[in-house]
Amino acid sequence: MKVDGTPYRSLWWDADKDALQIIDQRWLPHEFCIEQLDSLESFACAIKDMHVRGAPLIGATAAYGMALAMRLDASEAALDRSWSELNATRPTAINLRWALDRCLDLLLPLPQAQRATAALRLAHEIADEDVEINRRIGQHGLTLIQEIAARKTDASPVRLLTHCNAGWIATVDWGTATSPMYHAHDAGIPLHVWVDETRPRNQGALTSWELGSHGISHSYITDNAGGHLMQHGLVDMVITGTDRTTRRGDVCNKIGTYLKALAAKDNNIPFYVALPSPTIDWSVTDGVSEIPIEDRDAREVSHVQGTGDQGQIASVQVTPKGTGVGNPAFDVTPNRLVTGLITERGICAASEAGLSALFPEKANPQTPGKG
Amino acid sequence: MKVDGTPYRSLWWDADKDALQIIDQRWLPHEFCIEQLDSLESFACAIKDMHVRGAPLIGATAAYGMALAMRLDASEAALDRSWSELNATRPTAINLRWALDRCLDLLLPLPQAQRATAALRLAHEIADEDVEINRRIGQHGLTLIQEIAARKTDASPVRLLTHCNAGWIATVDWGTATSPMYHAHDAGIPLHVWVDETRPRNQGALTSWELGSHGISHSYITDNAGGHLMQHGLVDMVITGTDRTTRRGDVCNKIGTYLKALAAKDNNIPFYVALPSPTIDWSVTDGVSEIPIEDRDAREVSHVQGTGDQGQIASVQVTPKGTGVGNPAFDVTPNRLVTGLITERGICAASEAGLSALFPEKANPQTPGKG
Repeated sequence: MKVDGTPYRSLWWDADKDALQIIDQRWLPHEFCIEQLDSLESFACAIKDMHVRGAPLIGATAAYGMALAMRLDASEAALDRSWSELNATRPTAINLRWALDRCLDLLLPLPQAQRATAALRLAHEIADEDVEINRRIGQHGLTLIQEIAARKTDASPVRLLTHCNAGWIATVDWGTATSPMYHAHDAGIPLHVWVDETRPRNQGALTSWELGSHGISHSYITDNAGGHLMQHGLVDMVITGTDRTTRRGDVCNKIGTYLKALAAKDNNIPFYVALPSPTIDWSVTDGVSEIPIEDRDAREVSHVQGTGDQGQIASVQVTPKGTGVGNPAFDVTPNRLVTGLITERGICAASEAGLSALFPEKANPQTPGKG
Repeated sequence: MKVDGTPYRSLWWDADKDALQIIDQRWLPHEFCIEQLDSLESFACAIKDMHVRGAPLIGATAAYGMALAMRLDASEAALDRSWSELNATRPTAINLRWALDRCLDLLLPLPQAQRATAALRLAHEIADEDVEINRRIGQHGLTLIQEIAARKTDASPVRLLTHCNAGWIATVDWGTATSPMYHAHDAGIPLHVWVDETRPRNQGALTSWELGSHGISHSYITDNAGGHLMQHGLVDMVITGTDRTTRRGDVCNKIGTYLKALAAKDNNIPFYVALPSPTIDWSVTDGVSEIPIEDRDAREVSHVQGTGDQGQIASVQVTPKGTGVGNPAFDVTPNRLVTGLITERGICAASEAGLSALFPEKANPQTPGKG
């Protein structure tokens, strides 16, 4: 998407320099820095230290890391070493392992001389697949926004609310929850997006940065505000992303999503979740009882990062000394609160029947999906 | 309540020094400072610049301000001037005007020589009335906590969740939502309180400081976390305060309260609101449609205050440059989501019938209450 009028992806291969360029996301939304990755170590560091974040983007970055490694040394030993080093960076990231295995499966049988070219082609393919999935999510989601715009009897823009950052910088391009927004904006539909701050990590600042950079009208709001806005008719639709969706359509997403789903239901506002099908976990049915929720570092809650008076990045402690902190990172929104799921194959009900109809090959227990 | 083992009120008259002592709340929860008010100007400044906050506490402080003024000069001119100067400090605070008028009504007919003594006696009376109201709220609320404790079949403490700071430092003592907690703790019932951070102003840090200072087990959590905790059986009851309750029991309170009420309902958890009867607005019925909600300063959302690396009080900006902010300060929880109201006269249903039964003299339209 655009940053100050220039279209960007979250990463791109620079053929002249034989290197990958990424947006170093550690400094967003405060600084926009581009970083060049041209050694296996720089790739490992970029993934491990979260210069890139978001499952799809991590997978694509790792694939380019393998491609870079093959250009430097295409031996079997180098292939093994690259796989191991990259895989060790974020051991629990499913997309990382999936992308690396896909590279290994392709490259291992090939003659050494063909590996560099094949690896780069595959990395492009993985990146392009992600873009295509998100583009399709956006096109399907666009139809929902068009319907709302068509029903408007006043001059108000279509007002969307989103939580966390399911944006283009968490993917290669378009994002998931944001893709319908970018499609609608580019189609000329007037929009206003209420962006939940999303404590504790304030990913709403990233979403605000994205939307602002692309020229989409938006307001940053506290996580407390959405219910009130809905009560007063100021929200037409909620769209969020998801980290994991169960086979019956329960949605695990950033902590606080459930509260917005409750408010949407109470005010008869459609609540949609945008998801690439690889995030469906076909092995899980009941999200609330089956999905373990990670309790993360207390410092995420007790301290807040931003820019200080001099524009420097700084953090302050908001809790009194000695106060304990609870920090569950995700919650589960039961499918009864979800109006529909926006996938790359279309929109369906948040139910086993809905998902099975779109993904019959995954839903069939004879051929269980990999999640 | 206690701070490091020593019992405090939010203010107390020091007869030796002929002056009022207050806790200067601008530095809480980071620093505990006591300030002496011994001139009309110091009283006006303390109210205006929010050294004291919370409607009941502001009223009591103003009454002591009148008492101090009468000790320095008990003339009618001084009486008028004191009333005007104090009344101008927070023009929209209902309790301020109410306390000042009560002083004026008492003092004006008195001979000059009696005014100083009478004014101090009235200030004590106003402060003590607030303490007594809150003590009774606590005793009624205590019965709810005792019932939960009695039903427990495991060793878990009674787990309460609260939003914002309806604590003793917003009143003269006990607080409203916190009063049942202090009563239960002092009665030996094991408690754990989940304290909502309450963005944008993070009053949860004040509540955490209060509870910690009195020795009550608690955790500071993001406003997003409560729904998840309720889904997993980790909350036994919600208790909040209120800024204004309508005659049918709709509850206007700090933004985000409505979301917690929805989650409590969805998980079959009792949701109680503690309120001194002066906060009932008998002139309003439908809170959502009738109560105007103030949109406050963007900086409350865009910037976060805390302590910096060196322990100094500092603030950081969390939003990207140029991002707009929405900041509705309160929301309304419809009475259908409120299990009950805890008042100084007892607990009632959040309904016109419930409130009328407890406060017949106010509910009667022949003698409308002043709210």
